[in-house]
Amino acid sequence: MPMREGRAASPGAGGGRARTRASHSRESVLAEAVRLLDEAGAAGLTIRALAARLGGGPASIYWYVSGRDELLDLAADSVLAGVLDAVRAVGEGDPIDDLRTIGETLFDAIVDRPWLGAYALRDTGTQPHSLRLYEKIGEQTLRLALTPTQRFHATSAVVGFVIGTAADMGQELPEVVASGQMDREEYLAQATAEWRALDEGEFPFIHHVVDEFARHTDRGQFRAGLDLLLAGIRLQAGA
Amino acid sequence: MPMREGRAASPGAGGGRARTRASHSRESVLAEAVRLLDEAGAAGLTIRALAARLGGGPASIYWYVSGRDELLDLAADSVLAGVLDAVRAVGEGDPIDDLRTIGETLFDAIVDRPWLGAYALRDTGTQPHSLRLYEKIGEQTLRLALTPTQRFHATSAVVGFVIGTAADMGQELPEVVASGQMDREEYLAQATAEWRALDEGEFPFIHHVVDEFARHTDRGQFRAGLDLLLAGIRLQAGA
Repeated sequence: MPMREGRAASPGAGGGRARTRASHSRESVLAEAVRLLDEAGAAGLTIRALAARLGGGPASIYWYVSGRDELLDLAADSVLAGVLDAVRAVGEGDPIDDLRTIGETLFDAIVDRPWLGAYALRDTGTQPHSLRLYEKIGEQTLRLALTPTQRFHATSAVVGFVIGTAADMGQELPEVVASGQMDREEYLAQATAEWRALDEGEFPFIHHVVDEFARHTDRGQFRAGLDLLLAGIRLQAGA
Repeated sequence: MPMREGRAASPGAGGGRARTRASHSRESVLAEAVRLLDEAGAAGLTIRALAARLGGGPASIYWYVSGRDELLDLAADSVLAGVLDAVRAVGEGDPIDDLRTIGETLFDAIVDRPWLGAYALRDTGTQPHSLRLYEKIGEQTLRLALTPTQRFHATSAVVGFVIGTAADMGQELPEVVASGQMDREEYLAQATAEWRALDEGEFPFIHHVVDEFARHTDRGQFRAGLDLLLAGIRLQAGA
């Protein structure tokens, strides 16, 4: 994808613009945007707030992005650049194991960032690192005995499961937890007690798994699900 | 879970409240909330806007919910009530096939509702139908030769994949499509052209699957992924 050129690369710049430009680097703008998003969520990111944190005016941000939406895409892409960097050496082992490694690394980068799920790999046209990460995941399937259709679906399923699960786990905190009225352990204990109090005849499955629910971790749950998906891919590839 | 009692069930009600209450039923409030959410997204749902559409004041809404957050939970739950109703008869066939049927029905209810992903099965304490749907999905795994841990993980994986994928597909529309500047076909055609223009040595996977990408549908992509996950569960159960 001839990725839309970043503004920094565009040649023309009048005096004011050049001066503005020199005040922050593109890297520092995106790094500060990620910090602000991590602290305050997507709702907390405004061009004005970001500019204030960097000690400049809005024009210093508009040098690099056309607006808030593009800023979110680029901030997400900068996080995925870190994922891409962490998995650079992956790709020489068993393809399924390598898919697992990349999937877990991506999950870890997203799960604690409720703002990121909606923008990760959203528009690879403006997200060069996301595009390369998608390519990297897909390349593992090139080493499996699958058809092009199967490879496209396997890659989409892994990406969808990782991003979807991480986004869901990241944001599914109920109001009482999100607001700090209750911590995760208290909430889990209360929910577990509520599950135990349900009628066993009406809710046989919930009673069957309530102990699992009580001791589960999001990460463990994610890994087990990814393993089931990877087992399906391995079976299809006869690998 | 002794689900938090709906406000409608609470006993005390002064004259003004009783009058307000009579103006709309709980069902009509939630149905109108879903319509408003479908039209305007989560950002468009305010207690005031909803009350205006129903031809009443905010108090007529506060009779049923403590605020906007609970309203979103209940609106999501009312959509899932429809899913539960649609799959009521499922559960007598092959357990994996039945999981597929429920998963696809749930997907179809969520995918065209970008607002719903964040609230579906979020807090089963206030979402009685969501709790029953979770139970229903889990019950299919009771008919498979799995351990309680495996059943919990299989159920979580199916729920996570369906909701995560539907939510991601529902909201991943880039700005140009969401704003109506470009329709999905035009966007897909442009993205496909951009993929074809990438360097083939650097992006071998993307070139390998570009034709698949060009003709893919979100629903087909979802179904293929769900099948891979279900194949992994079937393998684990030896079914």
